[in-house]
Amino acid sequence: MSRPAGRRDRGRSRRDRSRPVSVPVDAENPAEPELGPPPDLPDGGLRVVALGGIGEVGRNMTVFEYAGRLLVVDCGVLFPSEDSPGVDLILPDFRAIEHRLDDIDALVLTHGHEDHIGAVPFLLRQRPDILVVGSRFTLALVAEKCREHRLTPRLHEVKEGARVQHGVFDCEYFSVNHSIPDALAVAIRTEAGLVLHTGDIKLDQLPLDGRLTDLGGFSRLGDEGVDLFLVDSTNAEVPGFTISEREIGPVLDGVFHRAPGRIIVACFASHVHRVQQVLEAAAAHDRKVCMVGRSMVRNMGIAAELGYLDVPDGLLIELDEAMTLPDDRVVIVSTGSQGEPLSGLARMARGDHRSVRIRAEDTVILASSLIPGNETAVFTVINGLTRLGATVVHQGTARVHVSGHATAGELLFLYNAVRPSNVMPVHGEWRHLRANAALAALTGVPEDRIVLAEDGVVVDLVDGRASITGKVEVGRVYVDGLAVGDIGESTLGDRLVLGEGGFISITVAIDATTGRAVTKPTLSGRGFSDDPKALDAVLPMVEDELSRTEAENITDPHRVAQAVRRVVGRWVGETYRRRPMIVPTVIAV
Amino acid sequence: MSRPAGRRDRGRSRRDRSRPVSVPVDAENPAEPELGPPPDLPDGGLRVVALGGIGEVGRNMTVFEYAGRLLVVDCGVLFPSEDSPGVDLILPDFRAIEHRLDDIDALVLTHGHEDHIGAVPFLLRQRPDILVVGSRFTLALVAEKCREHRLTPRLHEVKEGARVQHGVFDCEYFSVNHSIPDALAVAIRTEAGLVLHTGDIKLDQLPLDGRLTDLGGFSRLGDEGVDLFLVDSTNAEVPGFTISEREIGPVLDGVFHRAPGRIIVACFASHVHRVQQVLEAAAAHDRKVCMVGRSMVRNMGIAAELGYLDVPDGLLIELDEAMTLPDDRVVIVSTGSQGEPLSGLARMARGDHRSVRIRAEDTVILASSLIPGNETAVFTVINGLTRLGATVVHQGTARVHVSGHATAGELLFLYNAVRPSNVMPVHGEWRHLRANAALAALTGVPEDRIVLAEDGVVVDLVDGRASITGKVEVGRVYVDGLAVGDIGESTLGDRLVLGEGGFISITVAIDATTGRAVTKPTLSGRGFSDDPKALDAVLPMVEDELSRTEAENITDPHRVAQAVRRVVGRWVGETYRRRPMIVPTVIAV
Repeated sequence: MSRPAGRRDRGRSRRDRSRPVSVPVDAENPAEPELGPPPDLPDGGLRVVALGGIGEVGRNMTVFEYAGRLLVVDCGVLFPSEDSPGVDLILPDFRAIEHRLDDIDALVLTHGHEDHIGAVPFLLRQRPDILVVGSRFTLALVAEKCREHRLTPRLHEVKEGARVQHGVFDCEYFSVNHSIPDALAVAIRTEAGLVLHTGDIKLDQLPLDGRLTDLGGFSRLGDEGVDLFLVDSTNAEVPGFTISEREIGPVLDGVFHRAPGRIIVACFASHVHRVQQVLEAAAAHDRKVCMVGRSMVRNMGIAAELGYLDVPDGLLIELDEAMTLPDDRVVIVSTGSQGEPLSGLARMARGDHRSVRIRAEDTVILASSLIPGNETAVFTVINGLTRLGATVVHQGTARVHVSGHATAGELLFLYNAVRPSNVMPVHGEWRHLRANAALAALTGVPEDRIVLAEDGVVVDLVDGRASITGKVEVGRVYVDGLAVGDIGESTLGDRLVLGEGGFISITVAIDATTGRAVTKPTLSGRGFSDDPKALDAVLPMVEDELSRTEAENITDPHRVAQAVRRVVGRWVGETYRRRPMIVPTVIAV
Repeated sequence: MSRPAGRRDRGRSRRDRSRPVSVPVDAENPAEPELGPPPDLPDGGLRVVALGGIGEVGRNMTVFEYAGRLLVVDCGVLFPSEDSPGVDLILPDFRAIEHRLDDIDALVLTHGHEDHIGAVPFLLRQRPDILVVGSRFTLALVAEKCREHRLTPRLHEVKEGARVQHGVFDCEYFSVNHSIPDALAVAIRTEAGLVLHTGDIKLDQLPLDGRLTDLGGFSRLGDEGVDLFLVDSTNAEVPGFTISEREIGPVLDGVFHRAPGRIIVACFASHVHRVQQVLEAAAAHDRKVCMVGRSMVRNMGIAAELGYLDVPDGLLIELDEAMTLPDDRVVIVSTGSQGEPLSGLARMARGDHRSVRIRAEDTVILASSLIPGNETAVFTVINGLTRLGATVVHQGTARVHVSGHATAGELLFLYNAVRPSNVMPVHGEWRHLRANAALAALTGVPEDRIVLAEDGVVVDLVDGRASITGKVEVGRVYVDGLAVGDIGESTLGDRLVLGEGGFISITVAIDATTGRAVTKPTLSGRGFSDDPKALDAVLPMVEDELSRTEAENITDPHRVAQAVRRVVGRWVGETYRRRPMIVPTVIAV
């Protein structure tokens, strides 16, 4: 990647490129701990705060404030990783705007992926009449999601090219391509300047639906002068260019051609164009298609109804019917591409699917990315399928997936089209943000005009200059089962300890007046050892300790419990070198 | 990869290659459940059983039996993944040979990686005088490991080219290259035939130490006739060829050239040639090197002492001295390339390392693979380092790592050199084994001569034909802290439940004769909720239930406990839709 020539203006200068670009950590860097609450926003200034999505991949939500009013772009969920065990979803932290929900002029959704719309119902629960703005397909998915939450959102459909005033925010929408149809970028005009937010974006030059990312439109914005450019960082570390989604088609065709029996394709339930290509390969090879997985059936139903998915007549059948056809006439399109243990595909891999038994002639295609953190789950599925004899094709062995996010080469096109005065990388972990910042700098954006602002860091655009002015508290809001927000670091810390070492409980009743143990202590371990005698040796020590506390006239159950905890904890550390949670319960009777 | 021309003999035939190779699942396939204990081994037959390492990556251990005697090849550990939480190590299951330890003629170690030697002390604890055979470097690492376990092994050093009779087994050793020096393949001759076991292998044609994999020797074995070929499957899914380790050097050199400040290189603590190249780059750029991490210091000390690592005079310094030098004169070589949370590198990334504070000018190189399952940990380290401003170079962004295992193209060379009658893929998960089997078939090995035998599956070589004859029980033996084998599926299952949902304990004392509760029930949750009132609503229900059990004259503490468990379990499911472990303790006083 060499730096393309181009106009350079608005205070930008060429820099020495003999050394690799590194964005210096300065006093404004959020890694420094001293950031406090921001000052009042000066008149005519625009404030930007991410409540999720910067410093992480997921739960994207960015709040823009101008003249006392708020515009929210996206409201997604983050799927938990091993550091938040047992949790179902992680939401953006709404606290910074909870007291100002009435100030929201609109919630703009750039596209319909869960990490951009998944938290919408949770926000609407707090103020149901927020105006929700998005493209036709995005809003169809949101409406369905809200229906499941028994909410009726106020929807406002926009198309690329539309320019709409939402309260004080003058918003213009641009087509972008991504791994879901009908994605939009949004330009936000206020007196403070022109801001462009890419949403999730790629630059597929031969998109399956012919809907190009509007680079010309971005260039016109660049001519007008973009004061702040918020740019998708997901693939900034990846050099070069992503091949076109269209190139998956011939690969699928080749796999279909060679498959002797059934074909099972797993992909994301919202990837309409991927499924479109599967349908076309199926039709070309005279196979019928059945879809399995609730979200796949639902989303493809919506996509077909709205015309985003073109389904040849008679191609789709139900699974029951598919089971009656010859194997080489069948394609099953399924969820479960990330190894989700409850998905149809994982059940097939374990041999416990309700209807589908994997056989040696089956070909399984994982036409999807492998999201970091899911490797073990995905490989477990692949191993299960191959153990049963199936041929498994995945992105590690064939080009059956392309990413939906612009790689470094494409991002350079964006920077050179937009020529922004200030840049704020969004959507990514720190490694992605820095890589994106380095690309911006390569195209000539001065390093002090690139703001690396993780969740909660306040960026103010004042007099054409973006700078970090403070930080609001942004934590993680966990959804576990039906409850939102009752789980925090204490509970998760306990889960991590329990998950690593289990616990040992010691229960004893003491006489409330003498402190004498009136029962033999009950010792019990869970998640500690399979050996039923594992705790036998510590029982006499506990009894000795209880004799001691009695002798010292200790009658406070808490103090007795502490003494017992100490004895058991020391013993288990010395004997086993393990750290189970020690849970003493002392009842005074 | 097209199939090279070559001699085809020993019952092998060309096959139709117009369709992709799939190895059929037949009645012998271990995925079929009906395999039972094997019959007696016929006279003159050779039996092969893996006690670890097939169907998984790690804890390699293969047992060969001939004429009532045993030869063991490798004895390694498996590092636990998320399905075995809290465990330190997983050992091969020795049960199948535990009653026959005196029959072992030798334990042959192909090389010094933990997944090949890590369980040696645990086997020697059961019979300390087993003859341990290996190359010089391998034995040096084993001796050090045994010293830490206070064991003095009986060592027998061999070199490539050596042919040694170990009891009834006539063993010949061949040089192979891998990601550690001094690796060996072993050919085992008995009256049953000639078996070749690759160990871990690659075909670097320009190895840093000039020590080539002895393809010519393999070819001579092929001329003699290899009856069974056990082949490393790790990279069988990866098409093409691995570049030479030597090509890392110029990449390191380029990174060193551009690094403005300190350089920190993390790699595997046994990767002598990788470290060698770091030392050379450091010397070329006038930097001193200090090593941190216990295993790095230990292994490189051994390697230097034995002449496997060439350390220029005065190059190595201690960390204290390094801290006094200018930043651009320092290289730190560290462990922690897999994101291990207690490693020096992870501490630096979190900002809590004892001496090293990461700064914006630092360059960190992860010169290592990313082992599946470690992604989250490694990316956490990379994000931490980049957040602090460091430039991080890793295999995703530069060619700073090459694999130590033969990829598909190299494996074809092996098959074509050896021309085996029977093939048994080893070292790999099912996806790797099948990919390896497909390569063997492509070179002309008949599909019914390729045995896919996971751990415990018994393969007998009789009359020149290898076939599956049964299965012995092979489980996972877990080491957690000081104890070996007391943790099983029950404990791990409890840990998984506790790690996902925590527990709710309910403790109550009842009168032993009336069943009346003599205390108010104590309810307590750990890992359940941060909300101190989370369990308040269920207390009256528990009290009601206790009144009911009292009214029914139930005095058996177990029955009362069951009743309480039911009430709390139902309530928490309905109220929270969560599944914590419910732990009632009822004491009769």
